[in-house]
Formats: sequence, C-alpha cells, structure tokens
Amino acid sequence: MKIQILTIFPGLCEAVLSESILGRARRAGLVEAEAVDLRRWAKGRHRQTDDAPYGGGPGMVMMVEPIADALLELRAPETHVVLLSPHGVPFRQKSAERLAQKSHLIFVCGHYEGVDQRVADHLVDEEISIGDYVLTNGALAALVLTDTISRLLPGVLGDSGSALAESFTTGILDHPHYTRPASFQGWETPPVLLSGDHGAIADWRQKAAERLTRERRPDLL
Amino acid sequence: MKIQILTIFPGLCEAVLSESILGRARRAGLVEAEAVDLRRWAKGRHRQTDDAPYGGGPGMVMMVEPIADALLELRAPETHVVLLSPHGVPFRQKSAERLAQKSHLIFVCGHYEGVDQRVADHLVDEEISIGDYVLTNGALAALVLTDTISRLLPGVLGDSGSALAESFTTGILDHPHYTRPASFQGWETPPVLLSGDHGAIADWRQKAAERLTRERRPDLL
Repeated sequence: MKIQILTIFPGLCEAVLSESILGRARRAGLVEAEAVDLRRWAKGRHRQTDDAPYGGGPGMVMMVEPIADALLELRAPETHVVLLSPHGVPFRQKSAERLAQKSHLIFVCGHYEGVDQRVADHLVDEEISIGDYVLTNGALAALVLTDTISRLLPGVLGDSGSALAESFTTGILDHPHYTRPASFQGWETPPVLLSGDHGAIADWRQKAAERLTRERRPDLL
Repeated sequence: MKIQILTIFPGLCEAVLSESILGRARRAGLVEAEAVDLRRWAKGRHRQTDDAPYGGGPGMVMMVEPIADALLELRAPETHVVLLSPHGVPFRQKSAERLAQKSHLIFVCGHYEGVDQRVADHLVDEEISIGDYVLTNGALAALVLTDTISRLLPGVLGDSGSALAESFTTGILDHPHYTRPASFQGWETPPVLLSGDHGAIADWRQKAAERLTRERRPDLL
C-alpha cells in the first residue's frame, strides 16, 4: 500500500508519518507513506497555490491548476484519489476497511474553507470528511485517514487481534479496559476481570460494551 | 487560551503545533498550546505508561496512575480536562465553539484501543470522539480539537469573516468555491460569480449550499 498526501504542509505531515505506530510500519516497509509538496506544481515567482474567491468574500481558495498538474504526474491506473473536505461523505471505520484494500491512495488536502469546486467535480474519485467540524487545513484529516487505514494493514499492529476487538469494528463501542493496579485511590477494577474465569470475563465484556453503547451511542444500535 | 496535550508522542504534537495557522497563532501569542510528555509521570526504570489488560486479551491499556499524577500537577481550578476516546461524545462544530470559551484545556491522549476506565470515570470532565473510526492513538484526535478550537479564537484567522461563513457554522454545508482561472481544461466557473452582481451571487451561494446539503447530507437539514 502506497499513500501520498498532497499538501502545502509536507513538514507537518512527515513529522506525523515518522512517529508512533505509523513511523514503525513505514520503516518496516509495511506501508509506503509520504507527504508530497503541492508547491512543486505551483507556478510563478510566488509559487501560489491559492487565490481570492470569485464572487468575493473572505478566505482564500485553493487553485485547481496545481492540483490538476500534480495528479497528472502522480496518478497511475490503480490510483484512488480522495479529497479531504467538509463537503465529503463522513468517514467511518467501514470506509477505512474499504480504502485499506486499495494499492495506491492519494489524499488531496486543501484549505478546509475552500478548494476550487472543479477539483471535486473533475479530479478526484471521492470526497471524504472526517467529521462535522472545520479544520484550518485538510492535512490533519489526511493524517487521520492514513493512521486509521494503515493500522488495518497486515503486520502493522504488533498484536493481530488488536484491530478486531475495538469500537466500531464490531459495530458497537468497545467494553471498558482496566490494567494495574487493581485498586487505585479507592477506585477498584471490577472483580470479575481478576477472577481468571474466561467465560465470565467474556460475558461481562459483552454486556458492558452493550450497556456503554446503549448509554452513549444508541444511534449505533 | 492555554491548551496542553498530555501524550506519549510530544514530538509528533509539537511538529503539528509549530506549523500552519496554529504555529503562527502560537508565535503571535494568540494561543498557548504545548505538548506535555506523559512519561514525566511514569515510574520505574522503563517509564511504563501502559500494561496488559486485566482479564486478558490483545493490546495494551494506558495506566491510570501516570495520568492521575500528571493531572494532579497540571490542573488548576479553571482547567477543563478532555479524554480523547472512541467512547466519547462525537465532536461537532458546536463542541468547538463551546470549548473555545474555556481558559485552560488539557487533552488526554491514550492508546485508542484502551485507556484504563478509571481515567474516564474519575479524572476527566468529558470524553470526546472525533469520529466513528479507530486511530492508533489519541494524539491526532487532540490535534484535530486544538486546530478546530484555535481557529475560532480572536485574531487567529487573518480574515475575521472566515470562520463565520463555513460548513457546519451555519448549520449546513458551505457553498462551492471557485478561483482563477475562470476556465480550466474546459471546466467553467459559474458565470454569476464573475458577474459582479452581489445580490445574485449571494442568492446563488445560498441556493447552492442548500442543494449541496440536500444531496450530500440531508441529515443536517
């Protein structure tokens, strides 16, 4: 799997791609992820990538031309291009599972407040939003996708069971977790988890996950 | 506004906090944002911050003790502490507006697959999720909150109108944007945007925003 983040903030992206589980997966060759500087395709002395909106109004709009030129160079037949934008389809764990099947992803990051509409209309395969809030820039959104997708790839999580048992993967929230010490400041670990009775533990976890989901996110049920 | 991100990946967070609009706002003193290394409060030779889950199973769980000790030192009377977790309330633009009123925020980042439940139960003011997907770690989620909240603070966006006209702020998706060139590869800018008729432009934008929301996100209407 190759992931390229097309951005005017390659330094920010590289810093995130180099650390944590993502950095380890990259060094182990499990995922090829890189930031690509959009300014390479910007023209003129100022290497401009945005301009004032037609029709007036505040903010700057990312220009279509540098993005078109970049994609012309980076895109291969198997490439799947995603624009990160608040107009996009809300990203879900299911979307991560689907995108993890692709061999080459390009994430196009714009100013979150405006990318020339012709990018969405003519140059990308889909438009994704990470949530109903406004970021300054799509770079963090692209990194969220990169992280969420990468951890589903074979070998990336040290413990292969990890990706299966979590919130959203099973359709509901995950059960609560506890680790040492058993008692801390008078706050106790549920005794069943210390019992060694695997059947009772599995049963408690299932019920606790269902209760948590019912209380917090009935919309998931 | 002071934001502290309590994390085992302070380098990753600092890299993001130093760049883009966030970096500029920080250098201008408009927001005081920093990453705080949780390992400062970890004990023992290995400075351990996670451990195997009680009751067995894959993955590691963030321990309650270093987080409790860190918050004991960092928390002031006005501090509002948020745990980033997939169990949390879904983050929305309205949550950003609410949190932008606080004077001191601490974001607690854990392994996304497990933080000792006693942290959520006893140590934080609220639990927030940035979306229905699983990250390797809460650091990216904390950065998403930091970015979304910071850009609402006075002076952070160069153009004060910018934060008002966007998707979700008005309750629906934003209208499409266009910038130069007017025609690119045969793809045209809607002529009304080039007309100079401000009434007609405002009207087109309002209708286009409503149409886009109806098509893409009827759930917002």
